[in-house]
Amino acid sequence: MLSRPDVAVVGAGPVGLGIAWRCAARGLRVVVHDPAPGSGASHVAAGMLAPVAEAYFGEHELTGLLTASAARWPAFAAELTAATGADIGYRSEGTLMVGLTADDLAEARRLWAYQQGLGLPVTPLRPSALRDREPALAPRVRGGAFAATDHQVDPRRLVPALRVAAERAGAALVPTAVRRLSDVDARVTVVAAGCGAAALTGLPVRPVKGQVLRLRAPGGVAPGFRHVIRGYADGEHVYLVPRHDGEVVVGATVEERADTDVSAGAVLRLLRAAVDLLPELAEYDLIEAIAGLRPGTPDNAPILGPLPDRPGVLAATGHHRHGIVLTPVTADLIADLVVTGAADPLLAPFTPDRFAPAATVATAAPAVDGRTGPGASAPEEEHTWN
Amino acid sequence: MLSRPDVAVVGAGPVGLGIAWRCAARGLRVVVHDPAPGSGASHVAAGMLAPVAEAYFGEHELTGLLTASAARWPAFAAELTAATGADIGYRSEGTLMVGLTADDLAEARRLWAYQQGLGLPVTPLRPSALRDREPALAPRVRGGAFAATDHQVDPRRLVPALRVAAERAGAALVPTAVRRLSDVDARVTVVAAGCGAAALTGLPVRPVKGQVLRLRAPGGVAPGFRHVIRGYADGEHVYLVPRHDGEVVVGATVEERADTDVSAGAVLRLLRAAVDLLPELAEYDLIEAIAGLRPGTPDNAPILGPLPDRPGVLAATGHHRHGIVLTPVTADLIADLVVTGAADPLLAPFTPDRFAPAATVATAAPAVDGRTGPGASAPEEEHTWN
Repeated sequence: MLSRPDVAVVGAGPVGLGIAWRCAARGLRVVVHDPAPGSGASHVAAGMLAPVAEAYFGEHELTGLLTASAARWPAFAAELTAATGADIGYRSEGTLMVGLTADDLAEARRLWAYQQGLGLPVTPLRPSALRDREPALAPRVRGGAFAATDHQVDPRRLVPALRVAAERAGAALVPTAVRRLSDVDARVTVVAAGCGAAALTGLPVRPVKGQVLRLRAPGGVAPGFRHVIRGYADGEHVYLVPRHDGEVVVGATVEERADTDVSAGAVLRLLRAAVDLLPELAEYDLIEAIAGLRPGTPDNAPILGPLPDRPGVLAATGHHRHGIVLTPVTADLIADLVVTGAADPLLAPFTPDRFAPAATVATAAPAVDGRTGPGASAPEEEHTWN
Repeated sequence: MLSRPDVAVVGAGPVGLGIAWRCAARGLRVVVHDPAPGSGASHVAAGMLAPVAEAYFGEHELTGLLTASAARWPAFAAELTAATGADIGYRSEGTLMVGLTADDLAEARRLWAYQQGLGLPVTPLRPSALRDREPALAPRVRGGAFAATDHQVDPRRLVPALRVAAERAGAALVPTAVRRLSDVDARVTVVAAGCGAAALTGLPVRPVKGQVLRLRAPGGVAPGFRHVIRGYADGEHVYLVPRHDGEVVVGATVEERADTDVSAGAVLRLLRAAVDLLPELAEYDLIEAIAGLRPGTPDNAPILGPLPDRPGVLAATGHHRHGIVLTPVTADLIADLVVTGAADPLLAPFTPDRFAPAATVATAAPAVDGRTGPGASAPEEEHTWN
């Protein structure tokens, strides 16, 4: 019994490793199960920390969580670098959102107005100011706006750093796959398995395919632009993320498919939009074309909290396009939940019980306080693993 | 002395291996030197056997050699398959040459008229006839022509088959690089080293970069088109080569560069032209983007025959875009030259001495028949290695 861990984390992506780090740092005994750490969606992700640019119509609650997590990123990055010595590629130049054509700009401006209406820091720029900030933009680009607080990190640097931090804090990595949660023996099990959460828990997490390119500036120099650029280009949405080492990530498709094949059409669309916005990219080397599977949910928001029908099991999955930006808030609040048993109010809109099937609600026994459904019993179950 | 080979071939690409096969089959002791057989231009090449579509203005003599070699291909392929049992992907459906826009078609028609003027079999097709032949072509394609005798082979199947044939005929492969021709001990040395011939011989062979994509039809089926398609698409020249196994080769850039980096701009241009001509390719997987270096020469024609100033050394290099189609005629005629010492008249326009530098001509001693220059002494030198 002495060897039974306090926390078993299933999945060693950024979310799972972040949770493991935070839990281990609080003195809990932590085991992380993953046969291939960092090989999921994070391996493909660009690493934009973009609560402003990703604030979409109808996703107000998600925007709040993104904003809260992005606000934690500077300290999180500093702490992680202090703990590991690793450069995780955190950059704070901000994000330029641009429109190539008049139609693109009209579409973009609708969204910027919405974002400004939420009080988010979006600053429209005159074309001359846009070019002053980023002279490499194509002369055709009609206009843009600046999101100073939308930063970036390199996921391929982040995940190894989180692994080192978690292990230094005492967490143990076990390179085996978890097929059933009943195979895991721990006081609390955290399912941070991305798309794999569906098979383990029955939660409505589905793969959402994304194709991404990596370019490299020729000659071993840094790219000729500093900001993350998010553009609308003849109706295509594309982002361009520059790294100090010369890499530029170009993404991404959003496809309701579960394969990881790279398609000619997707590469064509991404390259065309990228080169239309930033012509010098035509001269860059194309060094990788890759596809990954985001863990999507019915409302595009993550699933964070206790499973209603599985005592001692927490979900931390469904991060969809937002796994990297949401890593700090997920790690902090899930660790809090493990330690205190109480969920931070920030998590309230994201609990698993929002997806309880109607049939289950209808047939569930009444809970002691008269409410029905699996969600109602969650408070009792929380006590079982605290 | 017993172990001294009759022929040492430097370079195990299709040309070198073809020569080795033909020489070994005639009873000569043959050694082929190459640290990485088949890793040069042939690994990237599409394998079009296209003397008609590749008949360009001002290259009349080259066209004659291409035509002669293409005529040898059916028997060469049959003999190679009989010798090895290998499927080398030889296909004879022919080539469709098409123009996307009116401008493209006008450019294409100029060339087709030239090709018809040479007596080459080019058959203009009405748009309806073009679509009957290849329904997958984009409706936008304005017109085309059929070159029934322009076939294809798969270079990645050809080279291993040639190696098996050469070895079964008695040739020995030595996996070492040849740095200097003086390191080779054989009665006759054949330099079939592609771009490497320049450093070995001083011949004016330069690398001409070509970028090529490989797509694959989804679902493990054959591509939705049967012909090799060569198109002009908004000014881009592109070819699409379908294989029975689902592969489609899309090529190629022609660049005066010596690197083998894949550039975003080249991939964009190739994919755009390919998808414009054959829209279903957008759904295909992109499985490879690669660059190779063709051995180019000042007149775009190969260099075939004795080096004027190096007794016992023959060149078989500089095949540029035509290495695969020229393999049979090169193999046959260089083997003839080794065995008989007499050059077939077909080789006359392609001898190395056409590149003799003027300075060398001016300072060379008169040959016995009164002609001057290194080329004049070739007949004597031929005898030294026969």
